[in-house]
Amino acid sequence: MFSTVLIANRGEIAVRVARTCRELGIRTVAVVSTSDLDSAVTRIADRTVHIGPGQARRSYRNASAIIEAALQTGAQAIHPGYGFLSEDPDFAEICDLYGITFIGPPARVIADLGDKSRARKLMDDAGLPMLPGSKSAVDNVVLAKEIADDIGYPVIIKAAAGGGGRGMSVVRSAAEFADAFRTARAQAQAVFGDARVYVERYLESARHVEVQILADQHGNAVHLGERDCSVQRRHQKLVEESPAPNLERELAARMGRAAVQGALSVGYVGAGTVEFLVDERGEFYFMEVNCRIQVEHPVTEMVTGIDLVREQLAVASGQRLSLRQEDIRPNGCSIEVRVNAEDPEREFLPTPGRLTEFTVPTGPFTRVDTHAFPGWVVSPDYDPLLAKVIVWAPDRNQALARMERALGEMRVSGDAVESTVPFLREVLAQPLFRDGKHTTALVDDLLAKDRS
Amino acid sequence: MFSTVLIANRGEIAVRVARTCRELGIRTVAVVSTSDLDSAVTRIADRTVHIGPGQARRSYRNASAIIEAALQTGAQAIHPGYGFLSEDPDFAEICDLYGITFIGPPARVIADLGDKSRARKLMDDAGLPMLPGSKSAVDNVVLAKEIADDIGYPVIIKAAAGGGGRGMSVVRSAAEFADAFRTARAQAQAVFGDARVYVERYLESARHVEVQILADQHGNAVHLGERDCSVQRRHQKLVEESPAPNLERELAARMGRAAVQGALSVGYVGAGTVEFLVDERGEFYFMEVNCRIQVEHPVTEMVTGIDLVREQLAVASGQRLSLRQEDIRPNGCSIEVRVNAEDPEREFLPTPGRLTEFTVPTGPFTRVDTHAFPGWVVSPDYDPLLAKVIVWAPDRNQALARMERALGEMRVSGDAVESTVPFLREVLAQPLFRDGKHTTALVDDLLAKDRS
Repeated sequence: MFSTVLIANRGEIAVRVARTCRELGIRTVAVVSTSDLDSAVTRIADRTVHIGPGQARRSYRNASAIIEAALQTGAQAIHPGYGFLSEDPDFAEICDLYGITFIGPPARVIADLGDKSRARKLMDDAGLPMLPGSKSAVDNVVLAKEIADDIGYPVIIKAAAGGGGRGMSVVRSAAEFADAFRTARAQAQAVFGDARVYVERYLESARHVEVQILADQHGNAVHLGERDCSVQRRHQKLVEESPAPNLERELAARMGRAAVQGALSVGYVGAGTVEFLVDERGEFYFMEVNCRIQVEHPVTEMVTGIDLVREQLAVASGQRLSLRQEDIRPNGCSIEVRVNAEDPEREFLPTPGRLTEFTVPTGPFTRVDTHAFPGWVVSPDYDPLLAKVIVWAPDRNQALARMERALGEMRVSGDAVESTVPFLREVLAQPLFRDGKHTTALVDDLLAKDRS
Repeated sequence: MFSTVLIANRGEIAVRVARTCRELGIRTVAVVSTSDLDSAVTRIADRTVHIGPGQARRSYRNASAIIEAALQTGAQAIHPGYGFLSEDPDFAEICDLYGITFIGPPARVIADLGDKSRARKLMDDAGLPMLPGSKSAVDNVVLAKEIADDIGYPVIIKAAAGGGGRGMSVVRSAAEFADAFRTARAQAQAVFGDARVYVERYLESARHVEVQILADQHGNAVHLGERDCSVQRRHQKLVEESPAPNLERELAARMGRAAVQGALSVGYVGAGTVEFLVDERGEFYFMEVNCRIQVEHPVTEMVTGIDLVREQLAVASGQRLSLRQEDIRPNGCSIEVRVNAEDPEREFLPTPGRLTEFTVPTGPFTRVDTHAFPGWVVSPDYDPLLAKVIVWAPDRNQALARMERALGEMRVSGDAVESTVPFLREVLAQPLFRDGKHTTALVDDLLAKDRS
C-alpha cells in the first residue's frame, strides 16, 4: 500500500479521501488554492501545499503544479477525486511518466471512455444495449440529419467530449435539427475545445440508473448494485438512492452484469460507474461510463458496507479485489441529497459568502460528507456543493422519513448564502418521488408548476 | 401508534428520542429545566415545556411536573430516556394512573429488577448462571460475613437499590469485611434511601458483556446480540462495542438465549439489557438487568440496522415484535466512545462552561449522538456527557482505525471546558484493548501506570 497519497481536489471529496487514507495509515498531502488555504482538508491532511490562485485552471487543474507538489512531498500516488483532472487522460499519463500512481483507470481507458462517441461504440461492441444513434461522432449536418430522421424525433445531440450531463441538446423535430446541430457543435468547440458530436434517440421519460463497478489490475471486476439518480435539474443530479425504487431485481441484476461485462471489455481498473437509461417498458440502454469516484458514491457504501475509496486505493496499489460478487449483498435503502449554496428562487444562482451558521444533522443512520463549517467562506470559484446528506434505513419509506428529519435539522445561513435545503425538501415531498415512480422529468415539471 | 410523546429527559438522549419520533410522524414534547431552555432538543421537538429549575430533583426527577406537562400537551406516552425517572417504578405507576403510557417495562417488573438482590433471585430461579453469593439482601453482619467466608475473598458488597455501577464496594479479606459491610449499608442508606445490600464473589479480571433484548406485550422476546463494555472507570463505561471481541460465537449465542429466557420469566416488556460478567475461563454470570434504553445502544443499532427507539415505541403502543430472532443478523463491528466534559488530569473532575468550539466528526460510517453545539453551556447540574462518537466497519481493526480518525477530527474547546477525547485516544491505543483482550481492569491499570 502507498505510504503517501496526494489528493488533487478540494471540497468534500478531498476530506472524504483524506479520511480513508488516515484510517489506512497513509500520509496525505492536500493541495490547495489561495481560496482554500483554511479549508477543512488542511485540518485532516498531514501536509498542505499551496499550488496556485483561486481559479481552478491555475490550481486544481494545473497538472504541473500538482505533479511538482507530489514530487516535493514524496507522494507515490495521486487521488484525483471527481471533476478537475479526474478524467483527464493526459494527467493520468503525466503521472505515469513521473512514476506516480494515478488512482483511476489507465490513461488509455480514460481516453477511450472520455470520448463519449467512442465509448458508445466500445460498449456496443461489448454487447451492451444501446439506444438507436450514430455509430460514432458525426460532423456532417446532412448525414447527421439522416440519422436523426431514421431514429425519429426527439433526438439528443451529445458532445463527444462532454459527459456528466454537460454538452447535450434535445431536438424535437426535423425542422429544428440543422440549426440545433450547428449550435451544438459550436458550443462543444467552445466548452470542450472539441466540436465532435453524436446523435441518439432521446427518451422523454426515463430513469437514470447507474451501476457502481470495481475492477482490479488482474482482470477481476464486480458491481456493487445500482443507484437511481433520476432527480436532476439540467442533467445535474440532486438526489440519489440505492437500490433503485420499483426496479425489478432481475433487471437490476442484468444491468449489473452488463456493467461488469462492459468494464472488462475495455480493461477498466478502479472504481467506476456505468450509466444507463431505463425506459417505461423496463428496457435499459447504455449512456456513458464515468471513470472516477462519483459524488453519489456514499449511497452505495451505505447499502454495501464497503468503503469505495479504500477499494480504489487497494486496486491502485496492485492488490487483487478482495470482494467476490456473491459476497456483495446490498442491504436496506440509502438516499443522498446534494445541498448547494444556490438560490432556487433566482434560477439556482450560486450564492457565495461567509457561513455564519452551519449545523449538520447527526444521529442514527445519518451521514454527512462536507467540508463546510461555521466561518467558512463559500468561494465563487468552485461548484457550490456545501454538503451531502446521506441516510440509511431498512426500507425506502423509513429512509425518506429519516431524510426529511435530517434536513429539518440542517441549518445553513450566512452573509448572502442561500441553500437548496428547502427546495430539496419540496422535491422529496412530491408524490411521484415518494412513490418511486419519478423520471428525469420530475424537477423540471416541479419548477414549471412553481412558475405557473 | 402514539400521536404525541413527551420526552422526560435531556441531553443527547432527548435529541435521540425526538429524532425517531419525528421520523415516525409523532409529535414530541420536550420538557426542560431552566438550565436547558436553549438546548438542542427544543429545536427538534414540536413543543417545549419548562418544568422547573436546574436541579434535577425539581425538574427531570419531578414526576408531578412531568405528568402535568404531559396532560397539558395531550401526550399519550412518556419516553423516560436513561437515568432520572427511567427506572422509577413509582413514576411508571403514576403514568398508568393517569392513563399515560410509560415507555418501558411495567412498574412491577421495574420494581422487581430494580431491587438488585431480588433480580438476582428471579434470574437464578429462571436458570441463569450466577456468581456465588447471598440468596437475597442480608442485613446482619455476622450472617453476611459467613456468606463471604464461604464464597472466598475478594467479594463485592452491592446495594440492593444500586445498579448501573453505583453502590458497590470490593472486600479483599475477611479482616476488612465487617467494617466494609457497615460502611456499605450506611452509604446505601445515604445514597439510595435503602440500606439493604447483598454479597457476591468478586471477579478481579472479568469482562462486562451485556445482551440487548426487546420484548413485546404478547410474550415475545428477542435479543440483538451483545455489547462488550469492559472499558470502565469506577464502574462507569467509557467505550462500548458490538460484537464482543474474542468471544466465542457459541458462548455469545448462549448468553443471548439466557437473556431472553430471563426477560420472558419476569414478563419483561420493551428494550432492556441483561448484564453479565464473563470470566477468564469463558463462564458467564448474571449481573443485573437495566430496564431502559442504554447510553451504548447505538453500537447495537449499527450492527443490526434496527432503530431501538422505534422498537420501544412500537411495543409500548401494543404492537407485536416485527423481528424474529432468525432475522437479526449482526453485521460488522461497531464501537462507541463517550466524550465527557471532564478533566482527566484532575481526577475526571467535570468541567462545565461555555463551548466556544464544538466540531464533530462526520463521513463514512461515523455517527455522533450529541446535544452540544458551539455556544452551548455545559451545566454543572447534570452528568458531563457531551457526545457519543460511534463508528461502524466490516471488522474490528477497521473500526478502531475509523474511531481513531474520527476522534482526531473532533474539536471541543471552551471557557474552562476540557474533554476526555485525548484520554479516550490513549485508552484506544492500549495494546490489550487493540487485541480485544482487556478486562474491566484496563482503565484502572492505565491510570495507575500514568500516575507512577
